[in-house]
Amino acid sequence: MTAAAFVARDPAYASRIRASFARQGAMALIGAEIVDLAPGYCAIAVQPRPELAQQHGYVHAGIVATLVDSAGGYAGFTLFPADSSVLTVEFKLNLLAPADGDRLVAEGFVVKPGRTLVITRGEVRAEKVGKRTLVALMQQTLIVLHGKADA
Amino acid sequence: MTAAAFVARDPAYASRIRASFARQGAMALIGAEIVDLAPGYCAIAVQPRPELAQQHGYVHAGIVATLVDSAGGYAGFTLFPADSSVLTVEFKLNLLAPADGDRLVAEGFVVKPGRTLVITRGEVRAEKVGKRTLVALMQQTLIVLHGKADA
Amino acid sequence: MTAAAFVARDPAYASRIRASFARQGAMALIGAEIVDLAPGYCAIAVQPRPELAQQHGYVHAGIVATLVDSAGGYAGFTLFPADSSVLTVEFKLNLLAPADGDRLVAEGFVVKPGRTLVITRGEVRAEKVGKRTLVALMQQTLIVLHGKADA
Amino acid sequence: MTAAAFVARDPAYASRIRASFARQGAMALIGAEIVDLAPGYCAIAVQPRPELAQQHGYVHAGIVATLVDSAGGYAGFTLFPADSSVLTVEFKLNLLAPADGDRLVAEGFVVKPGRTLVITRGEVRAEKVGKRTLVALMQQTLIVLHGKADA
Repeated sequence: MTAAAFVARDPAYASRIRASFARQGAMALIGAEIVDLAPGYCAIAVQPRPELAQQHGYVHAGIVATLVDSAGGYAGFTLFPADSSVLTVEFKLNLLAPADGDRLVAEGFVVKPGRTLVITRGEVRAEKVGKRTLVALMQQTLIVLHGKADA
Repeated sequence: MTAAAFVARDPAYASRIRASFARQGAMALIGAEIVDLAPGYCAIAVQPRPELAQQHGYVHAGIVATLVDSAGGYAGFTLFPADSSVLTVEFKLNLLAPADGDRLVAEGFVVKPGRTLVITRGEVRAEKVGKRTLVALMQQTLIVLHGKADA
Repeated sequence: MTAAAFVARDPAYASRIRASFARQGAMALIGAEIVDLAPGYCAIAVQPRPELAQQHGYVHAGIVATLVDSAGGYAGFTLFPADSSVLTVEFKLNLLAPADGDRLVAEGFVVKPGRTLVITRGEVRAEKVGKRTLVALMQQTLIVLHGKADA
Repeated sequence: MTAAAFVARDPAYASRIRASFARQGAMALIGAEIVDLAPGYCAIAVQPRPELAQQHGYVHAGIVATLVDSAGGYAGFTLFPADSSVLTVEFKLNLLAPADGDRLVAEGFVVKPGRTLVITRGEVRAEKVGKRTLVALMQQTLIVLHGKADA
């Protein structure tokens, strides 16, 4: 899929998203941070550690889901008007490889920005001594709540 | 769907699952606990609190996913032989209502227990002053790793 | 999941749905027919035959999807107002067993009837000399198009 | 996602897939044909016509699913050994725009070729007087049946 060139309607989208992200207790709990933002795109990273692990020591599929659901949601949110907010309708996640390493990066990409529904896809990669491995693949549906500012 | 009556091959399945659950840093991090276990069934609960919230104060979709992915995984694991472990291949989650309240309970149900792949479905309910609301619906594929004990 | 008791807003929902079904060329092509309708519920059946088969002789996963996507869509449509129509936003389908036999029956059940989005789940069973086997499991999101009558 | 360069283990993969495709009654019924094949890739096309339509005249979501499920399945199958066959474990499909026009082309891409499970994604485009519109997005899990030749 060729990367679409999207234009943000709200020029202040980045500060609006960083403020929204800062209100998420879950992002602080898992130690996630936004590492990149562009119209239709968001990347969120976390450092794997025992508190995020499942029973074999890898990052839990649900934590991977938390990262990439947020990356997809904020990718969509970059394109929304200022007085709106975003909710996840649903997502589907395939786990492709054990999630561990030095850093886990989830990327969300807008595929189809509709007025009411926005479709995104997501990819999560594990970085380990310079090598990057695709560990998860997501497809997601978001809903735009018009007239309901996020804050 | 009528609830199938499943029989556990490993009579010690409950202690095996509780030990596996105790090795999950992510379950401790979010404060989750197993509240019910039966062959083909697992229920996991958490108390909503600001550390689990997304930007509007509800429990984050990813935390809901973490709960119900685990409930589905352990529902499947109840039916596995003792020397095996379980991995999530994929899941799909619909978010139906804001997740808040006094307690969030995720239930996993085995639908089809194959030798290699196990299909489950999951439901998450929010309990608020005695009222229960369905907040999420999941469909999940697990893979059985034979000959690889979980511990 | 306990079956919810739904009430249809349009008392003529059954004739509206049968007329809509009759406009579907794809339903005629595969030989599908509605075998049951109730508020929040629809069942559609087809007789397996070589024209519906994949390479091993079983009914093609896409034909199974066609049946259960329609059953879910019309299950939702039973609850819509008369001047609306329905579109599938997305669905996820697990194939559990080979689809063959004397008859294939897909059932759609409304789980959550929202004003804009309706969530359903679906089950497909194969009937073979009196025995019924669950062959597929679906989870689906529909969107209500208000003010756009189906015909 | 950068396109991975895959190598087919069976040099005769194309003729093996065309023979498998020819055994599918469902592909003949809907008038589908393979329009491209490469290691890890398959494209299948169909011409929209009333027999494939849902109630509004667009190609039925289930027919779109049939195309892209097959494209994903054969994309995976290009990489399998000669004495194996392929089954769809599950797929998830988002419908993005009405499917009509002169031609509908479904493409399947292998994302992760495992020994037992293969993950693909798919895209469906409608072509109308030279313009191409993305109408559906898929994510799919396949299982390799080793030692069971397709024919």
